[in-house]
Amino acid sequence: MKEKIKLGMIGFGGRGRGILKDILVPRDTVEVVAVCDVYEDRAKQACDIVTDAGKPAPKIYLDYKEVIADEDVDTVIITTSWENHINLACECMEAGKPVGVEVGGAYSIDDCWKLVRTYERTGTKCMILENCCYGRYELLTTNMVRKGLLGKIVHCSGGYCHDLRDEITFGRENRHYRLRNYLNRNCENYPTHELGPIAKLLGINDGNRMVSLTSTASKAEGLYDYIAQNEKADKSLLDRTFNQGDIVTTVIKCAGGETIVLTLDTTLPRFYSRGFTVRGTRGMYEEATNSVFLERDTTESDHFNWKAHWGNAEEYLKEHEHPIWKDYLEEGVIGGHDGIDWLVYGAFIDAICNDYDFPIDVYDMAAWMAITTLSEESIACGSKPVAIPDFTNGMWIERNKNINPKYAL
Amino acid sequence: MKEKIKLGMIGFGGRGRGILKDILVPRDTVEVVAVCDVYEDRAKQACDIVTDAGKPAPKIYLDYKEVIADEDVDTVIITTSWENHINLACECMEAGKPVGVEVGGAYSIDDCWKLVRTYERTGTKCMILENCCYGRYELLTTNMVRKGLLGKIVHCSGGYCHDLRDEITFGRENRHYRLRNYLNRNCENYPTHELGPIAKLLGINDGNRMVSLTSTASKAEGLYDYIAQNEKADKSLLDRTFNQGDIVTTVIKCAGGETIVLTLDTTLPRFYSRGFTVRGTRGMYEEATNSVFLERDTTESDHFNWKAHWGNAEEYLKEHEHPIWKDYLEEGVIGGHDGIDWLVYGAFIDAICNDYDFPIDVYDMAAWMAITTLSEESIACGSKPVAIPDFTNGMWIERNKNINPKYAL
Repeated sequence: MKEKIKLGMIGFGGRGRGILKDILVPRDTVEVVAVCDVYEDRAKQACDIVTDAGKPAPKIYLDYKEVIADEDVDTVIITTSWENHINLACECMEAGKPVGVEVGGAYSIDDCWKLVRTYERTGTKCMILENCCYGRYELLTTNMVRKGLLGKIVHCSGGYCHDLRDEITFGRENRHYRLRNYLNRNCENYPTHELGPIAKLLGINDGNRMVSLTSTASKAEGLYDYIAQNEKADKSLLDRTFNQGDIVTTVIKCAGGETIVLTLDTTLPRFYSRGFTVRGTRGMYEEATNSVFLERDTTESDHFNWKAHWGNAEEYLKEHEHPIWKDYLEEGVIGGHDGIDWLVYGAFIDAICNDYDFPIDVYDMAAWMAITTLSEESIACGSKPVAIPDFTNGMWIERNKNINPKYAL
Repeated sequence: MKEKIKLGMIGFGGRGRGILKDILVPRDTVEVVAVCDVYEDRAKQACDIVTDAGKPAPKIYLDYKEVIADEDVDTVIITTSWENHINLACECMEAGKPVGVEVGGAYSIDDCWKLVRTYERTGTKCMILENCCYGRYELLTTNMVRKGLLGKIVHCSGGYCHDLRDEITFGRENRHYRLRNYLNRNCENYPTHELGPIAKLLGINDGNRMVSLTSTASKAEGLYDYIAQNEKADKSLLDRTFNQGDIVTTVIKCAGGETIVLTLDTTLPRFYSRGFTVRGTRGMYEEATNSVFLERDTTESDHFNWKAHWGNAEEYLKEHEHPIWKDYLEEGVIGGHDGIDWLVYGAFIDAICNDYDFPIDVYDMAAWMAITTLSEESIACGSKPVAIPDFTNGMWIERNKNINPKYAL
């Protein structure tokens, strides 16, 4: 039991700065004692965010090893580029400091095993900070599934459908890691929205597990066309080849027989969507139309009355709002991304202060991040099916976890 | 050139009877001279449909060979169970009689080759009567794509999302072929809605082709649960095992680099949808929300204004309605499935009477129907990628066709 964490934070691109300002500094359970970025300007910006809020200035580091070694730091949050997430998380665990890591994908299966083995050897906790696990409609659906309203679940789909062409192509000046990834890799590079909520709903690593996947990438046309037509874009990129396909479709099979379809969709024009869809023997939820379709509430004529259900999920909130969101709405929703950042960081800090297990643990993190490198393998080999390792070594069949009900997914 | 076809029609389950009554009998370019079904009651029902409309009674046959051999018959339409489509079509071509075949999937690749080789040897035309190719919004989108409004197309998706649990489980009494297929097979058993319109839009067999696919099936829970909970259902089916997974996801890669995601979704509760979606470098169409999202018509703020676009495709009809539908609306929309049956059968009869090529030809038919047996192979082998044969033997790269512009897709 502790009242607050003494936080060291590493990586201050846009996400790191936003989280620091809106989610961590305002929280009285957090004392920011050290900030770090390889770019000095960013480290100083982070320091300013803390002092501008009237809090004591944190130490500024350019080398992450100094944050982890700092005896004043008891907890670390990593918001660096994707490539460093696992290495840094492991170094924190080696130092005995619980660590929270922003979302991303893995570059090798060996790295995922390293993550798990380091946790098992050190006993230090590690959490991937997947905010979408706390999405309001994801949790509404989860709650309805737990009540049995959708029957047996047989299929889920979701994705990261977000037009990032501006962020990626402007990225060179902006030192954004996405650009180098899109130029060189071809994979489901950002799987955890919406795999996180789906995995929790299907009991992945807790009675179920992901067994295999195939992954297929479309050609890459979106970024090239965007750069060609956009005056502000860096035209030198027109001489480069983007390896990353515009749409990557990954189909996952689970031990329980369920299928999951994940879509990466970030380089074509579109409105934002996570496309969360859950299909059961008694009903469905579909994010595209924000609709619930329950057998018990519908008749044959509803099957072809195809606009009638649009937006009706809001009505189901009255009776089936998830307890996490019921409490949250009463307490008042705070911060970015419709309030879900506040919840996931709250879950992280609460578990450290009150000695709970993380609601999203190192096995979840390894399994979810592994999808990236496995999809890369599948695409490279003509969409061949690849096995998904069981990072729990059989523990998934029966798990005992001590999770604070306030944050349990 | 001929004024009317002398039609023999084989197979009078629900679909055959509906097409006869609503689409063929009312048409003055059709003289129904023979009807056939292995069940005598159905053959007689078909005859009654014709005479009830005040037309001369057609001959009644129980053996399809007699229809094909009948010298009064110059054209055949096949609306039998899936298993017989290709064999019957080939026998018609051997007899020199143009043939139209209702939609379904193939049971072997060899059968698809037989279809193509029989056509090439006999020169007799064969068309798969895929009504969804003439869907209003499919054609709206196709028209916008042809005008370049969506940019380069990189990805499409669609499916057959139709709760058929009643039809399948009631099917035993009803002699419906779906039941035996769902009990015994596991595949994308009904691919042509929505593959047909997507294939036409992507120029499959006309400058493009489908190269490979993977297919993954969820477990089969929907029919079992439906039978268990439904009083009217045949409870003896609870002792059987349904092989057909509830949701089958098939991912197709095209020579042009495009991907197509097809979904079979027929045994879980849901509203009807064909989920037609087209993604290009400059815009998209999405059937789920019946929306068009064009880069030129949107700004950054529209990306998160996620309900704003729902239903806006109707506005785009004003300027971009496909010429086929513009004419059709002026002439007056007729018959089933929102009028698309009338159009596809019209295209078939018109090409025979006026000596045009079919807008959907035997190569399309082979390629589309092959998806069923290839998906069966992929699922049986753990979602392995399988190559899709080039049934045109290279002709797809450059095709010359003489299609009536009135029906050209």
